[in-house]
This record gives sequence, C-alpha cells and structure tokens, in this order.
Amino acid sequence: MLATSKRSNAIPTSAVRQLAAYEQEATKKGVKVLHLNIGAPDLDVSSVFFQRICAIESHQLQYVPSAGVPELIQEVQTYYKNMGASFEKNEIYVTTGGSEALLYAFIALCEAGDRLLVPEPLYSNYISIAKVVEVEIDGIPTTIEEGFHLPSKEEIVRHIHPKTKAILLSNPANPTGVTYSVEEVKRIAEIAKEHHLWIIADEVYREYIYDGFATKSFSLLPEVAQQTVIIDSISKRFSACGARVGFLLTKNQELAAIFLKLCQSRLSGTTLEQIGAAALYREDMDFIRRSIPEFKERRDVMCDLLAKVPGVTLRKPEGAFYLMVGLPVEDSLDFSKWLLTEFAVDQTTVMLTPGAGFYTTPDKGKNEVRIAYVLNIESIKKAVAIIEAGLKAYNQR
Amino acid sequence: MLATSKRSNAIPTSAVRQLAAYEQEATKKGVKVLHLNIGAPDLDVSSVFFQRICAIESHQLQYVPSAGVPELIQEVQTYYKNMGASFEKNEIYVTTGGSEALLYAFIALCEAGDRLLVPEPLYSNYISIAKVVEVEIDGIPTTIEEGFHLPSKEEIVRHIHPKTKAILLSNPANPTGVTYSVEEVKRIAEIAKEHHLWIIADEVYREYIYDGFATKSFSLLPEVAQQTVIIDSISKRFSACGARVGFLLTKNQELAAIFLKLCQSRLSGTTLEQIGAAALYREDMDFIRRSIPEFKERRDVMCDLLAKVPGVTLRKPEGAFYLMVGLPVEDSLDFSKWLLTEFAVDQTTVMLTPGAGFYTTPDKGKNEVRIAYVLNIESIKKAVAIIEAGLKAYNQR
Repeated sequence: MLATSKRSNAIPTSAVRQLAAYEQEATKKGVKVLHLNIGAPDLDVSSVFFQRICAIESHQLQYVPSAGVPELIQEVQTYYKNMGASFEKNEIYVTTGGSEALLYAFIALCEAGDRLLVPEPLYSNYISIAKVVEVEIDGIPTTIEEGFHLPSKEEIVRHIHPKTKAILLSNPANPTGVTYSVEEVKRIAEIAKEHHLWIIADEVYREYIYDGFATKSFSLLPEVAQQTVIIDSISKRFSACGARVGFLLTKNQELAAIFLKLCQSRLSGTTLEQIGAAALYREDMDFIRRSIPEFKERRDVMCDLLAKVPGVTLRKPEGAFYLMVGLPVEDSLDFSKWLLTEFAVDQTTVMLTPGAGFYTTPDKGKNEVRIAYVLNIESIKKAVAIIEAGLKAYNQR
Repeated sequence: MLATSKRSNAIPTSAVRQLAAYEQEATKKGVKVLHLNIGAPDLDVSSVFFQRICAIESHQLQYVPSAGVPELIQEVQTYYKNMGASFEKNEIYVTTGGSEALLYAFIALCEAGDRLLVPEPLYSNYISIAKVVEVEIDGIPTTIEEGFHLPSKEEIVRHIHPKTKAILLSNPANPTGVTYSVEEVKRIAEIAKEHHLWIIADEVYREYIYDGFATKSFSLLPEVAQQTVIIDSISKRFSACGARVGFLLTKNQELAAIFLKLCQSRLSGTTLEQIGAAALYREDMDFIRRSIPEFKERRDVMCDLLAKVPGVTLRKPEGAFYLMVGLPVEDSLDFSKWLLTEFAVDQTTVMLTPGAGFYTTPDKGKNEVRIAYVLNIESIKKAVAIIEAGLKAYNQR
C-alpha cells in the first residue's frame, strides 16, 4: 500500500499557526484581529536593506556560495568581533532563517532517536524541527512563579538521558522572555562540560534586553567553545523575519565541516536578502538600539495592564518580546478559539497562542498563553481590554 | 565523548563543488576559468523580477504564509492550468528552491533506511539530500551509447528493493540531458502503479527541450495522480537559480497535509523572491521561449565540436543544458583537477564536473564528466579547444 512516512506523520501541527482557520473565519465576518500570536514585530525594516537590494547592478541571479555571500559573512564576523567574540570566516554559515540553522544543528549533532534538553516552556518550533529529523526533546521544567529562571544544577542534571546530545536554549527566550543571568549561563556551560553535552545557544533575541539586565553570550565562553553552536538570525535584530537570513556559528572545525556539507546539499541560500542583510549590519546596527525603548514601553504597558486582570498570573520578563501568562481558564486553546469565533469588542478581537504547544510534558501549560507584544501601545491597551472582557464573558457562559 | 552524528558524516561532499579549492588556486594565479561545471545559465533574470521587488511599498518584512505567497501560488496554478494540469491551491507548496522540495518529499515518503530508485547517472544532490535524511538511492543503469534512455520494464523492476518507496527522476534530466519519450514516461507510471511506488518527478527543466522532442509531464497522468509528487522551480525556467524559489505539487491530500506541516516547521519561505517570481510567471512566461534557440545552438556547437575530439564519447541529448561525456582518461577527477592546477591555453582553462559523483554504483562514471553548456558560443568554442589540447597534453605526460 502507498503510505506516507511515520516520521512525517509524527510532526506536530504548528502551535503558532493552528488557529489560522478560525482567524480567517473572524476576518471574513469583518472582525478585526489583533495579533498577539506571532513574533513578527510591526516595525519597518531599515530602508538600507531595500536600497542595497535595488542597487544590485547585475541582473544575473546565480547560486551564491553555499556557506553564504562573502560580504555578509564578513559583516557577521565584525559584528561578533565588536561583541568580543572571535569567529573565523569558515566558522560562520548563513542559513535560510534560524529555522534551517536549527535543522542543520540537530542533524549534525544527533542521530534519529537522540534527545535534546531544553528549558520548558520552549519555542514550539524546536519540537517540530526536531521531529522532522526524529530527534526528541526533554523539558527542564521552569515556572511562571520563578519567572521561568533555571532550576538548580542538580535538578537540571536529573533530566539528562543516556541519549541526550545537547542542551538547547534560547536566551533571551521565546516564549517566556526570560533572560538568563551570567551565573545561569555558566551553570549550563558547567553542566555541558561535565556531562559531555553540546550547547545549542539560540541567541536571536540577543539585543532585546531591558533595564540593563546582565547576561552573557555563549560565544564568549572559551571553556565550552569546542562544544557550542550559536544560532543567530536577522529576523528579530533588524525586524526582518520574512528575509529568512539566519546563521550557524561554531569554533569546532569538525562540526563546521559538516555545516558546510549540509549547506552544499541545498547548493545556495537566498541572494538578495543576504546582500540586503550585509547592508543592515554595515549601515544600520543602530536599528536595534532605536527599537529597544519602544519594546520596553510595550512590555511595561502590557505587563502592568495584564497584572490587573483578575486571575491572571505573570512575571515581567527581562527580554525578547514575549510573555507566558497564566489565565483563569481550564483550556486556553478553547478560550483562544472562542475569542476568534464568538467574541469581539467593537468588532475587534485578539489572537493568542495556546500554551500547551510550548511544552513537551503532557498536560502542562493548558491554562497558559503566549503573548507577543509586537503591536503599538494603543493596540496593546485595546488587546488587554478585550482579553479582560473576554475572560469575564467566557467564564460566565 | 563529544561527537558529531554518524548520519551527518555520511553526507558526501558536493560533487559539483569539490573542485572549488583548485579553482580558487587557478584564479589566484591569474588564470581565467570557463565554468562548464555548474548549471547556472549566464542569462539575466527578466527585469520584471527586480522591478516588482523594488516596487514593494510596505517595508515591513513579516513571515509570509508557510505554504507560500498567495499571488505566487495563484500564478503557478495558472501556469499548470495552461499546461492542461489541474492543481488546487492547497496542492501547491512554495519551497526554498527545488532542494527544499526534494528534502520534504524524501521525508514525507521515506523512513530512515528506505530507498529511492533513480535512473543513473543522476543529479548528485539527490544523493546528498537523501543522505541528510538517511534515505538510500539505487541506480537504474543507463549508458551513453543508448543516450541514457531507460532500459526495459523488466530491467527497471529488477532494481526494486523491498524498501524502495519511490521512483525519482528528472525529465529532462540533469546530468545527462536525456528527455524521456511519452512511452518511457508511461513505462515509469505503469511500474509505479503495479509496484505501489510513489513517483517523484523533478521537472525543473520542463521547457528546455530541443527539436520538438515529445515527452509528457507526470502532472498529466491521471492514473498516477494520487501517487505523484512534482518538483518544480523557477531556477532554470527563468534563469533565477539564486532566487531559491521551488515548488512541491501533489493531488494526494494526505501528502499535501504533510507538506504543509513541513513548511510550517520553518515558518515561512522567502518574501521578496516569491513576489518577484509571481511577476515572472505573470509578465514574462515568454522568457523561456526566447532562450530556447540560444540553448539549442549552444548544445549543437558543443556536441558537434566535442564529437570531433579523439576518444570522446557522447550522444546529443534532447533537453536541459547538460551533457555526460566519456573522455579518454582513466580518472576524470584527476584530469579535472589537472586542468585547473597545471594547464591553461592563453591563460584560460576549463572547470568540469567529474562523472563519478553522479553514480551510486561504485567505479562507474570514472572516465566521464558532466558539461553544462551555459556559456556563450564563443566561450564554448574556446572551452572545447582547451579540453582537446588538455586531453592531448594530459595523456602525453
């Protein structure tokens, strides 16, 4: 019989996009949807990106080097140098978004059946991408009450499995916004060192840190340099998600050679966006510094207003632009769906991301939602008012 | 101990790119290299592509729908409709180049350890991409003498393994340029039907057929519609390799749902190139018809000149822009390397692709090279003269 593969059937439906059909329904009815569900900031990409692309003189569009366009690799090398991290050019690989970088890291480090250890709640696409290549994820439990900070070394080590190959974490983190202290970063490095694990450090939100909270990039820890992969991207740094330009960085030469083979297997990344990305690094590194005050204000307004909503649990996170929030409902998927299909204030409703998709542990996060504060202040105020009214109406049905 | 994965170590080095280091050496010495080694035509992309991209008004660059930009899906649907093939919008998935389309097809149809049956010599990246997801390839042997046309049904069936999940073929083919007759296409369909195999039909060179040779797209065979995946791309059709816009098409709904999940696992393809690609389909479908006479002339000149070189074996292919050529050498890798490092005529040499990388069967193709006739006529003439002089000098060392 003709069948599709078991491994592809095991890939979960995207938690972020599973409500898309209901959203379309709402839109069809003329209801405006405020998107708190996806981490795509509403900021314009710096105009240098488009200017550079439209100034390309040759209209030949050939494959670029598999590892990436040299001028972009050069800029990324300089960017890291300015951070105090030293990467050679052949230690930097340009990928089609952070997603491809994660996929390649998982393939390079894990056999099918191997496992990754990840602080939970975790970025749901980690689960999907891992499943694509038959890698399993174990969560390190963290809680809203502790602001999703890491448990003790002993508690983390307890979750290492004989098949665990790497600790994967995002810092600042999606979906919680938690940013790990220097001590927490070093705790992870110590565990990796002692237990012979790779570190996959997803630092795409690196600059999104508020109130001067101190953390440290894993690229600055020489003691684990040979066992570290950095995942990076221009998506958040330059508000350019749709450009699909990401990066893999490692000081480990054996691993770098594998990344090159993986990049060669798909010949070439994109051309225009890589050239545009080089211009962003070269000409507008200030972009992120200009955006930070705006995101800080959004976070503060969002948290302060949500904290006043009866039954809501949250801690103000240190970074990124996400919050995991506990709601006074039993099933946040049902509530999110209800908001889209049966509720509106002034013909406007809110799209949330149900929390369960961010957990590998069954039954966890069922009363939680992830909120991305990527809208302007006025929309954030409106959104929280809708959530508050929605919770009241939903619980009185 | 910290190790990289066995599966990633099993990925071969790209056959097309393995000579890159020697090429750089040649260039450093001031030797000009004529590139017959990579299938990137020297034609400009139609200016409508750049015009459309530079006319984008919004400078927000958010994730596009995982399945692709709606206006591009619409154009691709129309393109197939004009060919006589009917695909619904949810049967078309835009991928990051044909490479991602192949990767997703292999994951969706095969478990690790499953096998694909492919006419050999075959596109070497099929091997790399399959290895990335632990899929093995078995070759159906074809020969220069028979112009790389398919053997009998019985002979093909002999190569089916209990773990064979699909027949994969490109038509017109990379690396041989062979184009299968309508009867050969139906032969494959019959075998797939009788032996319950999927068909993965890579038709990215669909329009590159000379002298009116008659073939048929697998998208036009209703009897195998439920077991067929079409791989397509704008790379060759619009000479836009570097845009990385490819497609997966299937009428099988279960498979289509898996393609959607795979696309969702990486959130979004590229934005600018998809919008540009839509403009190419909408405004310049004539591009390919304008290019065909030029490619036909290149093929004719290349084949006629090469046929006169002593010891060279070839058959003039019906399509694409490749030739597999037998050379009077024992080891075409060594010869190709020698051309780059030790030989030049008027400070100019030629880069070829050694044939062995296009075979899975050990020791096959060692005296063959793939030639891509993607240069202008003058360069082609110069290249053949260099090959002829090179062969003479190489064999008299």
